[in-house]
Amino acid sequence: MTEFELIAKFFTRSNPTALIGNGDDCAVIRPQPGYAFAVTTDTLVEGRHFLPTIDPHKLGRRVIAVNFSDLAAMGAQPRYAMLSLTLPRIDEPWVARFADGLWSALNAHNVELIGGNVTSGPLSITLQAFGEVAVTSEGKALAMERKNARPGDELWVSGELGDAGWALHCMLGDVKSEATAAQIARYECPEARVPLGLQLVSLASSCIDISDGLISEATHIARASHVDIDIDFAAIPTALGDALASVDHAAFARHCLLATGDAYELLFSASPEHHARIKDLLASLNLRGRMIGRVIAAHDGVGGKVRVLDAKLQPMKIESSGWDHFA
Amino acid sequence: MTEFELIAKFFTRSNPTALIGNGDDCAVIRPQPGYAFAVTTDTLVEGRHFLPTIDPHKLGRRVIAVNFSDLAAMGAQPRYAMLSLTLPRIDEPWVARFADGLWSALNAHNVELIGGNVTSGPLSITLQAFGEVAVTSEGKALAMERKNARPGDELWVSGELGDAGWALHCMLGDVKSEATAAQIARYECPEARVPLGLQLVSLASSCIDISDGLISEATHIARASHVDIDIDFAAIPTALGDALASVDHAAFARHCLLATGDAYELLFSASPEHHARIKDLLASLNLRGRMIGRVIAAHDGVGGKVRVLDAKLQPMKIESSGWDHFA
Repeated sequence: MTEFELIAKFFTRSNPTALIGNGDDCAVIRPQPGYAFAVTTDTLVEGRHFLPTIDPHKLGRRVIAVNFSDLAAMGAQPRYAMLSLTLPRIDEPWVARFADGLWSALNAHNVELIGGNVTSGPLSITLQAFGEVAVTSEGKALAMERKNARPGDELWVSGELGDAGWALHCMLGDVKSEATAAQIARYECPEARVPLGLQLVSLASSCIDISDGLISEATHIARASHVDIDIDFAAIPTALGDALASVDHAAFARHCLLATGDAYELLFSASPEHHARIKDLLASLNLRGRMIGRVIAAHDGVGGKVRVLDAKLQPMKIESSGWDHFA
Repeated sequence: MTEFELIAKFFTRSNPTALIGNGDDCAVIRPQPGYAFAVTTDTLVEGRHFLPTIDPHKLGRRVIAVNFSDLAAMGAQPRYAMLSLTLPRIDEPWVARFADGLWSALNAHNVELIGGNVTSGPLSITLQAFGEVAVTSEGKALAMERKNARPGDELWVSGELGDAGWALHCMLGDVKSEATAAQIARYECPEARVPLGLQLVSLASSCIDISDGLISEATHIARASHVDIDIDFAAIPTALGDALASVDHAAFARHCLLATGDAYELLFSASPEHHARIKDLLASLNLRGRMIGRVIAAHDGVGGKVRVLDAKLQPMKIESSGWDHFA
């Protein structure tokens, strides 16, 4: 099987809304009138972003979730994707299962795959995702940015944190505990919070997805908005309650909650006047999100400081703020 | 240096025309009124698409050329790019030189880098390129596709073929000869034929860029257009004349001319009525392109056959049609 046959068999479907679909040097697409494209790309490298043991079906879904999570964080409606696949060899059953997982996620979002490429090399997957956001007649994109959090805003998270990171570290043997099937599923197959993102556009002042860790992402908002942020540790929703209460695992569980990535929940700020509507919205989407902190004026006028407060409202000591690929 | 610092230092410049520029979860862009985006992506893996010895400055330029060549083949004007960089480690001088090369090529095309990501893993670079093509009021993209070559059309190539492939195989030791500096430059730093592509939109019936080899690309056009194609071997422009005339190297030089990639010239078909205008256009752009063959009706009604004819108009025996990553 050649690369062209592989692309034709597994990665080529019709593109009803593209002006020119897949199969040429480029695809040609445009947003609907009154909209613009939100565009993002993410690479998943074997051994870095997924374990070699992952079921390729789950990997296919994970690739979509990781990228659409960035669209969700802008409040964009996913429309198109392009796939760059680097494979050590053509293992047809593996590719078939990977493609099945990919299409199941693409179809769930009604998104067209408009192109990409397949090459040989160490296993790595790069996806480009195109979403749509409305644009005002003045040319302003109606999308959530990181830079508009304001002192007085409340800080929210869309769901439970920590279990994806916990599952990964259990599988890697970094912590001597067993991850539950639910925790492993949260790590391997996160779900992009697209419906939430779409509805938050008119409510949130800033938004980001939690790919690298809560403190790291909160710091991005704080820096971009020139504010500081206080987070109440006890308010963070998590399924790691048992580990947090255990003498052996409490420290590591705290680390997972605050500084491990792969949660793909949305972290967002909003004016307190929207508190009730956001609570209702989270409940209507069956999300266990909560308000977890507050945006405050920058102590030094520059901003970018994130504190996590314990039950006595004292700042906790944080050793690592989040995932850095080169740390 | 963290990945965020690396992105800030080397890959972040202003995005004057983006609705939301780099630095958020997504960038937000839209084509100008009356235009659509032509989008493409290509991955370059170390050891596959470039040698580990390449000067990173040239690599940065090569990444742009390879991707913009696909835009050129559609007749699109490059506008934006996103970069996904996978690095084994942060080698700051290497990244600085790579970024310099990348920016020199982006700036030459007046293109904005609107985002991407940096991660750790085996050296690999994926670029996404966005170009603009005009759209008619009926919603038809004014772009060159592969599928509209018609019997009677002439087949053209935009410049000399073979020397990039020849240089690569000399460097790899596959052929016992020395590549000239000019040939190595053609391999390492091809130039996307963007100005030609833009002017061909109103002249060519089909177009593709030669990344995998002349016969392979001609076959793509023939299959998509349901036609056959005859190429006159002696008409193909090349700087490999000496090698073709040598007893030792003639066979390998023929292979380079017909079936090695990396040329990044445009291969296109056009009605004979445009012959003089295309000749003038190539001359005005200082390109050594020529008419090299003819589009003919499919012998079997299906099409997809490409023949290369020798001086006696007899079909030559072809052993390999082009580059396949998994062959």
